[in-house]
Amino acid sequence: MAEAKSTINFREITDFLNHIHPISTEATKFLIQHCNYFHVKKGKFLRSPIDNTETLYFIVKGLVRGFIKEEGDEITTWLNEENNIVGSVRNLGLAIETEEYIQALEDTTLIGIQQTALNEMYDTYYEANIIGRKILERYYRDADERAFLCRLPSAEKRYRRFLVTRSSLLRRVKLKYIASYLNMKLETLCRIKVKVERP
Amino acid sequence: MAEAKSTINFREITDFLNHIHPISTEATKFLIQHCNYFHVKKGKFLRSPIDNTETLYFIVKGLVRGFIKEEGDEITTWLNEENNIVGSVRNLGLAIETEEYIQALEDTTLIGIQQTALNEMYDTYYEANIIGRKILERYYRDADERAFLCRLPSAEKRYRRFLVTRSSLLRRVKLKYIASYLNMKLETLCRIKVKVERP
Repeated sequence: MAEAKSTINFREITDFLNHIHPISTEATKFLIQHCNYFHVKKGKFLRSPIDNTETLYFIVKGLVRGFIKEEGDEITTWLNEENNIVGSVRNLGLAIETEEYIQALEDTTLIGIQQTALNEMYDTYYEANIIGRKILERYYRDADERAFLCRLPSAEKRYRRFLVTRSSLLRRVKLKYIASYLNMKLETLCRIKVKVERP
Repeated sequence: MAEAKSTINFREITDFLNHIHPISTEATKFLIQHCNYFHVKKGKFLRSPIDNTETLYFIVKGLVRGFIKEEGDEITTWLNEENNIVGSVRNLGLAIETEEYIQALEDTTLIGIQQTALNEMYDTYYEANIIGRKILERYYRDADERAFLCRLPSAEKRYRRFLVTRSSLLRRVKLKYIASYLNMKLETLCRIKVKVERP
């Protein structure tokens, strides 16, 4: 993972945030001072459970997945592409241990900010709380959808719901990761995919 | 469901919020003006999918579950007791349809506020955004945990994780709801419970 403090203005993240709610010049300046670009090659890790700094990332370009290891198997817990915020989110705001890995599934560019800087931003610039609240509303809904999807008893229904909500991922993500995310065997996913696509 | 506008001060919710971050006298006044108490008998519904007003509830006393109906079966998607905020949260901040029911599992007292009033509060009192952001961080984590728990491939591991994270519910919630929440058959839960409790 390459990290390069840039002199440019992290326009991708400031545009993204400004679109949610206007941020002041001071808050923008603070943000830029505390951001870094990260470039992660396909297959490489952005984070493993032994990392002890908490960082949130905005995906500028590319695709990443979160997964846990369970008795040798990898279980994909989430998948996210450009214009999403990812991180060791199971810790979001709490100092408890996470077992989560984050892996790039394509060559990926991200902008990262450490949780400590983010907390300072919340304490100093009140508009950061408006933006944080609105972003969290969206991610709450996404996490709730992941919990809901997973409890649907029929594998075909889980796949059909995935088609409706996240179809853009189907072309980009290996089927084995999608199968894991949808809580089914790869063979099951392949069988259902053929059935659903058949005219 | 009985609803009674009270002249008292909704101390349970203002104390809860003040503990997260101090709220101004003006914001407290606004909140009190827009809150109502709700009393729901055991087994009765707080919300069904045909409700068209979005309301968030703070549970003062009691226990509720969220569930969806799937081909005649009820799937329990979450369980929450006192001092939690519940609602048609799959809609949180978004005007999309939810298929969710909310049912009281004990005689339950709640304080409710409509989403429209909550939005006005966010727009008018900046500290509401600090509190909202902090509450959402917690509920994001909870939803993420629900999604994670459900993807654990072994039923016994799901039960053991539930024991660690939500053991207080075990004495209060019917096993059939816990089994559904843990994505397993009632027979499986009973078998695992005996195994785990055996000295």
